[in-house]
Amino acid sequence: MTKALSEAEISGGLARLNKWTRDGEVLVKEFTFDSYLAGVAFASSVGVVAEGLNHHPDMTIGYRQVTVSFTTHDAGNKLSANDLAAAAAVDALGYPK
Amino acid sequence: MTKALSEAEISGGLARLNKWTRDGEVLVKEFTFDSYLAGVAFASSVGVVAEGLNHHPDMTIGYRQVTVSFTTHDAGNKLSANDLAAAAAVDALGYPK
Repeated sequence: MTKALSEAEISGGLARLNKWTRDGEVLVKEFTFDSYLAGVAFASSVGVVAEGLNHHPDMTIGYRQVTVSFTTHDAGNKLSANDLAAAAAVDALGYPK
Repeated sequence: MTKALSEAEISGGLARLNKWTRDGEVLVKEFTFDSYLAGVAFASSVGVVAEGLNHHPDMTIGYRQVTVSFTTHDAGNKLSANDLAAAAAVDALGYPK
């Protein structure tokens, strides 16, 4: 079981991220791209980073747009430090270029 | 403007595809995988095929599961022959292995 974050920890964590938003117990960010394949390539990169962290987001791929959503299933589907760390790792990919 | 299919054309087309279903005016199929990265790689492959056909699906990537959805925006968000052709091209990728 992973420990769920307190409200204060979530607020503090969100403030340190780049434009992630909270949707209930899910951390969400929408990325836009100049082309469809750029979005697909981004989703691939996120997948590899997520695998390395063993913390996997849901993603939706639309036309020139990818949404990444993190939550922690083994924290009772609540937000944990793993979500904040994974979101920061996605930001570190440096998209959008 | 792309021509929307008739109901008979949709039924006939669905019967020729492998386990695609119709959700209103969207053609949908869920693929499952042995690993998260296998799903991510599949989504990448679908993206490249879609780009080649210039007909792009929405996709959702979950844990070991990818859903692919086709509709035709320039047929008034209805199903067209392009959706059937793209679905067949996705099936031709041969997943799941």
